[in-house]
Order: sequence, then structure tokens, then C-alpha cells
Amino acid sequence: MKDNIYIGRQALQKLQELLQNRAFTKVAVLVDENTLAHCYPQLKPHLPQHSLMQVPSGEEHKTLHTCTHIWQAMTDLGLDRWSVLVNLGGGVIGDMGGFCAAVFKRGISFVQVPTTLLAQVDASVGGKTGIDFQGIKNHIGVFQKPEAVCINPSFLDTLPERQVKSGYAEIIKHWLIADAAAFEMQRHFGLPAQDWEKLIEQSVHIKARVVEADPLERGLRKVLNFGHTVGHAVESYLLDQPGRALLHGEAVAVGMLCEARLSQQQGLLSGQELDQITDFLLAVYKKVTIAEAELPHVARLALQDKKNSRTTINCTLLAGIGSAVVDQPVTLEEISASLRYYQSL
Amino acid sequence: MKDNIYIGRQALQKLQELLQNRAFTKVAVLVDENTLAHCYPQLKPHLPQHSLMQVPSGEEHKTLHTCTHIWQAMTDLGLDRWSVLVNLGGGVIGDMGGFCAAVFKRGISFVQVPTTLLAQVDASVGGKTGIDFQGIKNHIGVFQKPEAVCINPSFLDTLPERQVKSGYAEIIKHWLIADAAAFEMQRHFGLPAQDWEKLIEQSVHIKARVVEADPLERGLRKVLNFGHTVGHAVESYLLDQPGRALLHGEAVAVGMLCEARLSQQQGLLSGQELDQITDFLLAVYKKVTIAEAELPHVARLALQDKKNSRTTINCTLLAGIGSAVVDQPVTLEEISASLRYYQSL
Repeated sequence: MKDNIYIGRQALQKLQELLQNRAFTKVAVLVDENTLAHCYPQLKPHLPQHSLMQVPSGEEHKTLHTCTHIWQAMTDLGLDRWSVLVNLGGGVIGDMGGFCAAVFKRGISFVQVPTTLLAQVDASVGGKTGIDFQGIKNHIGVFQKPEAVCINPSFLDTLPERQVKSGYAEIIKHWLIADAAAFEMQRHFGLPAQDWEKLIEQSVHIKARVVEADPLERGLRKVLNFGHTVGHAVESYLLDQPGRALLHGEAVAVGMLCEARLSQQQGLLSGQELDQITDFLLAVYKKVTIAEAELPHVARLALQDKKNSRTTINCTLLAGIGSAVVDQPVTLEEISASLRYYQSL
Repeated sequence: MKDNIYIGRQALQKLQELLQNRAFTKVAVLVDENTLAHCYPQLKPHLPQHSLMQVPSGEEHKTLHTCTHIWQAMTDLGLDRWSVLVNLGGGVIGDMGGFCAAVFKRGISFVQVPTTLLAQVDASVGGKTGIDFQGIKNHIGVFQKPEAVCINPSFLDTLPERQVKSGYAEIIKHWLIADAAAFEMQRHFGLPAQDWEKLIEQSVHIKARVVEADPLERGLRKVLNFGHTVGHAVESYLLDQPGRALLHGEAVAVGMLCEARLSQQQGLLSGQELDQITDFLLAVYKKVTIAEAELPHVARLALQDKKNSRTTINCTLLAGIGSAVVDQPVTLEEISASLRYYQSL
């Protein structure tokens, strides 16, 4: 596949070849406590001499504060412009490690080795890097392509089911915006016990095709934001609420449901299609409770989304299952109403 | 000139036209207390409705800490991806403002309006942005081209002579690496009372030509680092010494003298040429005292320079006046010796 994306059992072998061929001056590997324990043992035999850098897991650590520690470690290890950073982890490690590499000495090479389903089908593809800032997701970051993305599905065996479900949300999103047939085939099954490698390949292919046509998110790429305007707002809001934080895909599942409702309200999606999406998502994902009084706070957070110009909230909506339309203006009140619909289910 | 570089009295008019034509959603202007007082009044009539963001002047504020304040202000002002940041100031404002814009929401537009001679002939051209980190200069940053560079020489009238001299060092550097005739003509005059606009145009032209051929500093662009390996080390070291901090150009003047000496020691430059360079620089720049015991500390800082791979210090040296050669390996001891030579003068 394009962009040096390797998928399958041979992905780690490909990484090994890349590191041998490129003769980087130094190799550093960024891990968290989970990937150190569960994934690093699989990766290690494929690496030349290298150093480990560890950060605590979790979105709450995807901050400038953690970056400062990473940059300090990179400095202490003597990484130079001809060194490479291998990011072994989920979206947090990939986004933050990618950002740290992209701005260290004005940019060094990095390789993404995504270990969660979410990162494998979404975050690792497309060159987005970034960190959260003052509670706003990915507020600081750059577009920068990794040297390679190495997707090893056997890392999924180490994941709790909740994590797998979270990643599955982005697969569902890819069906909803670009593959009606796959959605129709899968929607009766709920969370599938199936060939993840094949599902990952299909999903990465959809994403890579979109990203390649629009690397800097000027137009087409916005189709990938389906579910993410409301999803990010829900995620940001609950991140600050003790005990209520969601995984990214869980928030996106809420967002997809709300934005499907917005699509139906705007006459883009039939009531039957909305029901199919609703039934499917509620069968897979536990409902998230958001109180009536909280809805305006959540809706207002949607305004901070990067994809908005001025004060209009531009949403990606569905024009039927399998097709998306970008830049559909919605109001704060309509977003609140869609969350109210979700709560009523 | 290429890259939307406008030089001369009409530069601010060009900025006005750009801002009108592009219809940015919001315009923010980054200033420090000096450019607010001395330069902003000249700029203001050329701007549409805009907001001001102020940071304290000085290299010691070119830090992540200040960036955090800038990002907060950008967020509070509601800047979005279709907004523009106008950086009104010297190298610190340009480098830091450029970096802040380049990573805000994964990159918004920015315009450089350099107000010091140093920034006009060097920092504003070439797309380097960055901040200092743990005392290491420009350790964190990206390559990102501004929308435009607007160079208004009349800002120089507001500068203290020490600042003008600092910028003059980069002009001298451009002569030494690329224009022997200009050096020969100017070296008898010391700090010239002359046509800055013409000197700026010539210097920017040399720099832009080099940068265009090698935007990411993979090869040729390293000729611009002449004087900067030792210069950056001296600058970093003295930044931490109370009362001894140098302006960038003052440090580069020391660096050029030391690196001319290294060039002569390696048989690349004649003794007569070294003397010419030495006489000229000492006539313009006051000597900087660095004690014998400090030399190893300074030399070791040169190792942190971004341009080095592994443990070799790769220096750009002169192969005769008007010509530079890159990647000349020098040892820490040779760097100490060149500083010792400088002290002996």
C-alpha cells in the first residue's frame, strides 16, 4: 500500500528492513507502561540497538507537559537529525510521539507502530500529529508523514475488549461514509469475531485514499470527520469529569449517532437509515448519560473544533449510508437537540 | 523577489494588499513592548481590523512557556485555520510567532514583518521557525514558509546602534561565503553609514538563493551556518551568565572569527585572508572575554548544534573569502583552540 503502510504479520519484518537500510544514527522507541509490557516483547527482536523512552498511558497525558519530558529524553539520548523515533502505542503515543519528532531540531524521522485497533485503522494513517491544549483536543500539532506505518494485527490480542470496540467505531465510520455494502453486511452482527487483518486493510485503504487526495484537510478529507464534531465535544467534556472519561471511539459512536440524527433532520438521510445506524451503534456501544443541563456546555465545545470557520459549526453529515457531505452548517441548538435525541433512545 | 519577499518603502503597502485580497477570518499581530512602541504605529494604518498579542522582548522569553501564552491568546481570540498571524519584531518574535502559527490547529498562515536588521537579512527568510529549549537554541521548531515577508527598512531608524551592528554580522557572513568583491569593497569602512535598503536586498538575495536550493537544510544550505557553530555555542553559554548575554550577531561575529581561524588551520584560508577578516571584525565588534576555564564548556555546547551527526562537529568553513565548504569535521579541542586564538588577539 502507498505511504509505506505495511499491514500483517510481516509488518515488523518490514520495519526491521527499513531500520537496517536507512542506517539511522540512533533509534529510540516511545512506549507507555502497557505497550512496554504487552507489545514491546514482540517488537524488540526486530530492532537494532535502541533506547526506550516511557510516558504514562492515557489521553490526559497527551500534553505539552509530557512533550517536555520526551524532548528532554531525546536530548539526553543525543538524538540528532539522522535519528528515528519509533512510536509503539495507540493514538496518544502516535500523535504525541509524531509531534515530538516533527518539531525536534525542526523535524526528525519517525515510524508509527500502532498497537490499538483505533490507531491501526485511523490515527496512524494520514500524517496528523498533535497534542491537547487546555482541554482542546489536538489543538497543537502539525501535518507530517511518518517514514512508515507498521500495522501488526497480533497486537490486538493484547487489548481489552473495550479498546477493540473503540477502534471498531472508526471502521464503522469508514463504512458509513464510503462503503454501504460493508455496512449492510456487518450491521446484523454487532462486534464481529472475525478477520481483523482484512477489516483493517479495507479501512486503511478508504482512509489512505481520502488522505492522499487532500493531505492538508482543505476539502475532501473532511468526510473523515463524520461523527467527530459532536464526538470530540463529548470526549473533551467528559475528559474533565471524574470517572466519566470515554475512549475516543466510544465518543465517536455517540457523535456518529448524533450526526446521523442531524443528517436526517436536514433531509439528507432517511428515517429508516437513521434507525439502522441507531440500532447498530446501540447494540455495540453502551449508552452514555449526559444530563440536560450539560448539553449546552458540550455543544459549545464543538465550536472549538479545528474544522470550523468563524462561528458556524461546519459538520460532515451523511447523504445516505455510504456517502458523506462536508461543510454542512449546524447551530449550537441543533447540536444540543441531537444530543437530546440520543438521550431519549 | 521570490517567496513573497517585499523590500522597501512599499513593503507595508504590499502587506495591506495581501490582507485585503486573502480575506482572512481574523488578523492577529504579535508584538513586544519595543515593537509596540516604535514599529506598530507605522504598521497600523496598513492593517484591517485586528487584535494585538504582546510578549516580553528578549531571547530569554523565546521559550515554550511564552508559546503557551501565545497559544492561549490565539485560542481566546478565536483564531481559526483561516486566520493569519502577523509577527512584528526581530528574530525572537519571528521565530517564535512563526512556530506558534505553524503548529496552532496544525498550522495557520503567518506573515513576517521583521523590524531589526538581523531579522530583515536573515531570520525572516528561509522558513525556519523555532524556540529555545533547556538553553539550546532553536531546539524545537519546524520549517514552514510564511505567506509573505515584508521588509520595511525605515524600521531600522528606531533601532539602537548595537542592534544594527548585530544584524550587520549576517550581512558580513553573506559576503564571506558568497561575495568576495563586496567584502573587499566594504572591509575598509567598518560599520557603514549607507544605503541599508540596497545592502538588505543583496543579502536577502544571497540567502533566498541558497534556501530555495535546499529548503530543509540537507546540504547546500549549511553554507549559511558559517560562524554559527561556535557562535551559537558562545551565545548559549553567555545567555546563562548574568550580565554577559550577547546579541545574536555579536556572537556570530565571534563565531566567524573563530571559524575563519579553523579554516586557516585546515589550510583552506590563507593567513592574509584570516588577518583581513580578523581586522575587519575587531574594528566593528568589541571583543568578548571568555576565560580559559570556560572554553571547554563553550566547546561542548557546540556538540548540541542541530547540524551535527553523531559526535563529530561538522563545521562550515571558508575556502577563501567568498566561498564556503560544508561538513568539515573539527574536534572539541580545535574549537577550544580557536576560541583561545580569539582571546589572544
